[in-house]
Amino acid sequence: MTVEIIEKHQSFGGQQIKYRHDSTTLKCEMTFSLFLPPETKTAMPLIWWLSGLTCTDDNFSQKGAFQAYAAKNRVAFVMPDTSPRGAVADSDDWDLGQGASFYLNATQEPWQTNYQMYDYLTQELPAIVYSLLPNFSGKESIMGHSMGGHGALMLGLKNPQRFSAISAFAPISNPMQVPWGKKAFTAYLGTATKTWKEWDATELLKTVGTKHAPILITQGTNDNFYEVQLNEQAFLAAADVADETINYRKEIGYDHSYYTIATFIEEHIAFHVSHLK
Amino acid sequence: MTVEIIEKHQSFGGQQIKYRHDSTTLKCEMTFSLFLPPETKTAMPLIWWLSGLTCTDDNFSQKGAFQAYAAKNRVAFVMPDTSPRGAVADSDDWDLGQGASFYLNATQEPWQTNYQMYDYLTQELPAIVYSLLPNFSGKESIMGHSMGGHGALMLGLKNPQRFSAISAFAPISNPMQVPWGKKAFTAYLGTATKTWKEWDATELLKTVGTKHAPILITQGTNDNFYEVQLNEQAFLAAADVADETINYRKEIGYDHSYYTIATFIEEHIAFHVSHLK
Repeated sequence: MTVEIIEKHQSFGGQQIKYRHDSTTLKCEMTFSLFLPPETKTAMPLIWWLSGLTCTDDNFSQKGAFQAYAAKNRVAFVMPDTSPRGAVADSDDWDLGQGASFYLNATQEPWQTNYQMYDYLTQELPAIVYSLLPNFSGKESIMGHSMGGHGALMLGLKNPQRFSAISAFAPISNPMQVPWGKKAFTAYLGTATKTWKEWDATELLKTVGTKHAPILITQGTNDNFYEVQLNEQAFLAAADVADETINYRKEIGYDHSYYTIATFIEEHIAFHVSHLK
Repeated sequence: MTVEIIEKHQSFGGQQIKYRHDSTTLKCEMTFSLFLPPETKTAMPLIWWLSGLTCTDDNFSQKGAFQAYAAKNRVAFVMPDTSPRGAVADSDDWDLGQGASFYLNATQEPWQTNYQMYDYLTQELPAIVYSLLPNFSGKESIMGHSMGGHGALMLGLKNPQRFSAISAFAPISNPMQVPWGKKAFTAYLGTATKTWKEWDATELLKTVGTKHAPILITQGTNDNFYEVQLNEQAFLAAADVADETINYRKEIGYDHSYYTIATFIEEHIAFHVSHLK
């Protein structure tokens, strides 16, 4: 297994690095990015960042403005890509196929062959990333934006032993019930909606109970996608039924862009760091 | 004169806004971006950011990570585009024509008709930007990167009454003597090199003396363009002859990318703010 560095930049005393490797799980070449904070004797925890529809590992790396706080708090960040790439199944639509995996394991062709992002993110990629961290503490948490915000909730809820904290910016919190999610789940999982539940954060919250890590969600009130795609009511209602507390913050005037992420990333990192000790 | 908002994002309690307008100076439609900090009763100063070759107003807006510090220090930032755009003269080369104006007034055709960026930045655009600032203090300073780092030095040195501070990341500090500059100056200004001197920061430093604003320069030691395009020796030698102090900082391991700018932008803003009071 070869992991090749294709870009490396010094950043806030640490290193912002982009890698390329052949994924056995996804059967294609993949890229991902890693931010390594300045080295100290203290072991570093790892935060996973999952991006939204159409993104790659570059969006958060370049526009997330997280490096200052990751360096200061001595946490590593890994930014996976958002789907398999290259000569794999795709769609002409921007919200299906490449750039739009929803981080699940597809069961339907033509997607099933390559679209096994859940396995990639829980098995293959962690092993690679751990080997690249000079002094890993073993502690991990997960955050993301939009489709990746849902990915963070979904992966976090399904792996309570692994992730110490979960946070999301403008997550698609109940994909089974909204157009983006219905379209993707139908394609990747088929029409039997009962198989969708294991990939939907709101459904998972109902079954996982309080075993999961603490959750922080930031949602801008000026987000174009809010009403139709992101509506958090079902997610918060599920938490309410289970008598659980979600740290849910509505931020007046903020939209769906990386300007919102950059504004509140310091707060999200502080939340994660407090649970990664 | 119509100035139209084409994008607006809340950011760190302020506003990141992109505008479009018809430029009478450049005879084409132009975009520029503005960051307005959260409003206070205190009047706000204005910092100009000039980007490098191939950039638009978006690069610094999206990758500069400056908004946190601009908001905190209550300074506005304006990001002009790097050349005239659209149906104007251009070149197949990325380092000539659109995206590569060098911020001067061209005297040669086909460039002369539209490539009057110096006049645009010193006359037309300031009038527009001042009108968009809710509470302008009248104090201005200028910074930039690479070609725009030189633009900041050149505009700052030519307008000592206007700019209270000048700073640059990896500037092309003596364009007359390096390939990028020779190519552009030959095209825009013709082969009579004596006409080049008024657009070259090193030459200007020799004639302006100590009337100019204080200067801060950050240069990464791992910058691919350093040896051939950016070499600062002539600029620092000119300062030395005039017995002037340039705050010149070599940063070990940093490269030519926006990761370097993001790392040191807080320091540059602090430098500007100290001179904008």
